[in-house]
Amino acid sequence: MSKVNLPQKEELVSRRLDLLRAELVQLGWSAYLVWGTDPHESEYVAERWQTRKWLTGFTGSAGMVAVTPQAAGLWTDGRYHVQAETEIPSTVTLFKEGLPGVLILADWLKNQLPPGSTVGVCAETTSYERYQKLAVSLAEVGLTLEAGPDPLDKLWTERPPAPHSPVWDYQAQVNLETRAEKLARLRQILTLKKTSVVLSALDDIAWLLNLRSQDIPFVPVFMAYALVSEERALLFADLDRLSPVIPALARDGIQVRPYEAIEDELAKSTGSLWFPPQTNLALLSAARRQAPPAQQPALFHQPSPVSALKTIKSSQELDLIREAHRKDGAALVEFLTWWETKPQELTELEAAQKLDEFRAGQGGWQGPSFDPIPGFREHGAIIHYKVSEGKGSPLSGDGLFLLDTGAQYLEGTTDVTRTLCIGTPLPLQREDYTLVLKAHLQVSLAVFPRGTRGYMLDAAARHPLWKAGRQFYHGTGHGVGHFLSVHEGPPRLNSEPLPTALEPGMVLSNEPGVYRPGQWGVRIENLVTVVEGPSTEFADFLTWETLTLCPYERQLIDISLLTAEEKAWVDQYHHNLKTVLFSRLSPQAQRWLEKACAPL
Amino acid sequence: MSKVNLPQKEELVSRRLDLLRAELVQLGWSAYLVWGTDPHESEYVAERWQTRKWLTGFTGSAGMVAVTPQAAGLWTDGRYHVQAETEIPSTVTLFKEGLPGVLILADWLKNQLPPGSTVGVCAETTSYERYQKLAVSLAEVGLTLEAGPDPLDKLWTERPPAPHSPVWDYQAQVNLETRAEKLARLRQILTLKKTSVVLSALDDIAWLLNLRSQDIPFVPVFMAYALVSEERALLFADLDRLSPVIPALARDGIQVRPYEAIEDELAKSTGSLWFPPQTNLALLSAARRQAPPAQQPALFHQPSPVSALKTIKSSQELDLIREAHRKDGAALVEFLTWWETKPQELTELEAAQKLDEFRAGQGGWQGPSFDPIPGFREHGAIIHYKVSEGKGSPLSGDGLFLLDTGAQYLEGTTDVTRTLCIGTPLPLQREDYTLVLKAHLQVSLAVFPRGTRGYMLDAAARHPLWKAGRQFYHGTGHGVGHFLSVHEGPPRLNSEPLPTALEPGMVLSNEPGVYRPGQWGVRIENLVTVVEGPSTEFADFLTWETLTLCPYERQLIDISLLTAEEKAWVDQYHHNLKTVLFSRLSPQAQRWLEKACAPL
Repeated sequence: MSKVNLPQKEELVSRRLDLLRAELVQLGWSAYLVWGTDPHESEYVAERWQTRKWLTGFTGSAGMVAVTPQAAGLWTDGRYHVQAETEIPSTVTLFKEGLPGVLILADWLKNQLPPGSTVGVCAETTSYERYQKLAVSLAEVGLTLEAGPDPLDKLWTERPPAPHSPVWDYQAQVNLETRAEKLARLRQILTLKKTSVVLSALDDIAWLLNLRSQDIPFVPVFMAYALVSEERALLFADLDRLSPVIPALARDGIQVRPYEAIEDELAKSTGSLWFPPQTNLALLSAARRQAPPAQQPALFHQPSPVSALKTIKSSQELDLIREAHRKDGAALVEFLTWWETKPQELTELEAAQKLDEFRAGQGGWQGPSFDPIPGFREHGAIIHYKVSEGKGSPLSGDGLFLLDTGAQYLEGTTDVTRTLCIGTPLPLQREDYTLVLKAHLQVSLAVFPRGTRGYMLDAAARHPLWKAGRQFYHGTGHGVGHFLSVHEGPPRLNSEPLPTALEPGMVLSNEPGVYRPGQWGVRIENLVTVVEGPSTEFADFLTWETLTLCPYERQLIDISLLTAEEKAWVDQYHHNLKTVLFSRLSPQAQRWLEKACAPL
Repeated sequence: MSKVNLPQKEELVSRRLDLLRAELVQLGWSAYLVWGTDPHESEYVAERWQTRKWLTGFTGSAGMVAVTPQAAGLWTDGRYHVQAETEIPSTVTLFKEGLPGVLILADWLKNQLPPGSTVGVCAETTSYERYQKLAVSLAEVGLTLEAGPDPLDKLWTERPPAPHSPVWDYQAQVNLETRAEKLARLRQILTLKKTSVVLSALDDIAWLLNLRSQDIPFVPVFMAYALVSEERALLFADLDRLSPVIPALARDGIQVRPYEAIEDELAKSTGSLWFPPQTNLALLSAARRQAPPAQQPALFHQPSPVSALKTIKSSQELDLIREAHRKDGAALVEFLTWWETKPQELTELEAAQKLDEFRAGQGGWQGPSFDPIPGFREHGAIIHYKVSEGKGSPLSGDGLFLLDTGAQYLEGTTDVTRTLCIGTPLPLQREDYTLVLKAHLQVSLAVFPRGTRGYMLDAAARHPLWKAGRQFYHGTGHGVGHFLSVHEGPPRLNSEPLPTALEPGMVLSNEPGVYRPGQWGVRIENLVTVVEGPSTEFADFLTWETLTLCPYERQLIDISLLTAEEKAWVDQYHHNLKTVLFSRLSPQAQRWLEKACAPL
């Protein structure tokens, strides 16, 4: 990270902010809010919708920008405080969310604007849920929120077009529950609720229709909406790139329409419409366009039924996911074998690239599932570290190397973190690693009754760290999609009181950590899936099947800190992964794995 | 439990239900709902408000009764399914909440009543919160909820009067933060929120004003309301029984008014009124009595600020609470010494009474803090077992005896469960006991950062049981008052996603269990208080101080199942309690304790 080019950036940002301010006067808005999402609330967004970055220069993945006539502010969370400091010019004030005494957006706007002022947001990229929350917090300080056109459309002269990758038929390539079967399951829910559903989450649409593309970095989806009722299924997307799949879709009764046609279709709707809270306000206005209001469809805002179906992986999906992990495991072991003799001058980014070379060699590799996090020494303590320029630090001298990477294979999505030891570890490094391993193993070892929510497992991970005075400030785990998004809701393992119960077929990560700013970070991550466990007279229990296949770092394990149960789990895991991967490996990797998987 | 007298009861219940039905016609209500609370949402209620019992014969502490022209139903949870079956006559249908397929109240009413019917509840005993929830669930099935007068007032000819015990000045007896200091702290909050507060929870009022009485079984409170603003503090209660404390109250600027005067006072109120959600609808209507509406006070419904203050025990309160536990510990050890030579024919209830004899001998004993739960063999599996008639089962032959009791001392409230072994234990009984002990110890051993919520500790208790296929269906812990209610909110240790964070000074129970219906139950309970723990570079940690002083049942501990850390905690606990209690004990009890506290 460096401050190079900040003067030019400062000038560019100032010019863009002033252009925006002039436009706001036209729109009758006293302030404008931007957070850089696309119309589908995607986590990763195509360049066209990276409005936060265009306006401020900040490249982090989360943050809210507010622009008033006199000032501009950026609110971002602890992951990005350091990065934002180096990236945004002084014309934008940084508000570090989570630190005590930091002004919240609404209070800042209240100080900046006359009472009763109107604050604008872009209807197309503002979800119903976000709008509701924002409107309430602004109303509390006497401000009005209004959604309207995107003012950047005029100002951003070289704004990239919407992505336009070819769409292909995933179910023609692998063994999947067919889209006809999925539609039938969705329609059972729609019949029960007597409604149609508007789908705008891109992974919901890709999953339901068994289609894939590459509109968005890291996630094989395409820009589309869908509208499904008991009678009809409409897909709204660019027709020309859909053409190869139109016959297959037609056979399953799915009609295609241009992407933009969704609004007119909604304006014609009657009856009841299920609008998931992530649906954008432009669609909502379209559905309310009809007069008189009595003819407008009744809208209800419950979480998407497709998200609920998608999160429970089918047996076909799980078979594919296991194969993706066998490929990833083989690549990881080849990489770790090569690592033993890695060149002196290797850098953080080159290490991640080398791992991807081995992945590419596995067949069916489609690319990474997120930007690699290859943090050597103090970089390992930056939870979402990204090599900001060049190839990152050289991996020379002693130190811990936290390597968090993932892949998209035709069979599924992976996400794995191993913390490797270069040179001789410090006793405190071994203690940190072993405590994180214990936290990770307490999740792996857990057995839990049906109905258990993610926070009860998050607690299992944290207790061993807490007893040793450690804590980490991220969730223990997130849901993972099937050849879709590496972060997929609704299940999570974190401390927030979310009511989603864990169910067989859900795939989650198990990734506790310990981070010492300026020194090192440790994280250990496997993907796991919920499976049926024993049934007793007290309850029906669930447990985990571990999907990720990669040995832990033996040099960093202090066996004296492990319980017999924890040690036995590691030995069994190593034994199992060796058995599964052996035949897929080069002779050198086989020899390396033999040692790496010996009993502790 | 027996069916004796059920025919007479059947006739009595039928007669009362028919009287009620006639009265409902007068009121224009198609159905009436009763759940037996008093106007203050007290957990334990005086006879006058035991309307559920009067109407149906059911003596459990939780349950909803619905009466329609043709039918009557009782909904109650798993703790009371067996008891309700034996207690209610066939004229009342039992709905076992929690079992699959059981009709919920709203759906049953929908089947019973024409659409658009009005369902009545008593305004004086219905809280705002309960009313809101009920109104929503009835609206969903097309029924209207209405609050009005209590129809039982006319029908229940020998209805007991409201209790009327003398009120006394607690701060004149023990060292407490004064009521003037407490009022000043409350007023800081009221100033910040620019409001007055209506207090109706009896323990809130008793705590704030340092007054005690005995209107309600087990809880030393008195029937009252209070209204506190920045300028005034009004206490509404029977003036004659307040007379001894009126001068002291006057010195602190607290004016007294008759109990009934609260409604007129509210009807005169202007400005903003804080109405905790537990406040009853009669008070709410009084506040809304004024016309025009523009002059009505603005009401807001947030949890009581006094509950939030009361839950954090002061250092004076904790000193007193520790003394209460030393007294209770001495009584428990004397009891357990006597237990070694107990008579053959001793019964469940006699055992509990004997323990209370030892408590009474400690000085300052005010009575039990709840009905004792003395469950031998299969009775131990009934979580809220109550000896229903006579003296309960004789404690003869082999078996486990679960003894859950508590006391009110002048210094504080106790609540303790020990499971004792009579004769020779089965291997499975030792395993159950040791697993429950592990669950209990995992809470005791926990260290947790500031901000941790109760569910993260509940999880700590459950994981060792889950791994062994056990589960229990109650919370791991509840908040406990200071010489007030043995169940005090808001903190709890249970699996529900409640956002209350644990804070130093909170007192909670730690009481996991395992229950085998028809066989035995195991529960182990200590009271604990949150204290500051270590501060590290990662977080400020909290931990527990254990308040209860009583050895565990050595005969039932399978040491091979304990970790070294768990065993060390038990040894340290035993060593500590022996040191604290020794000088308070009889010579025989000293000898017994010496053995009971030897290292495991």
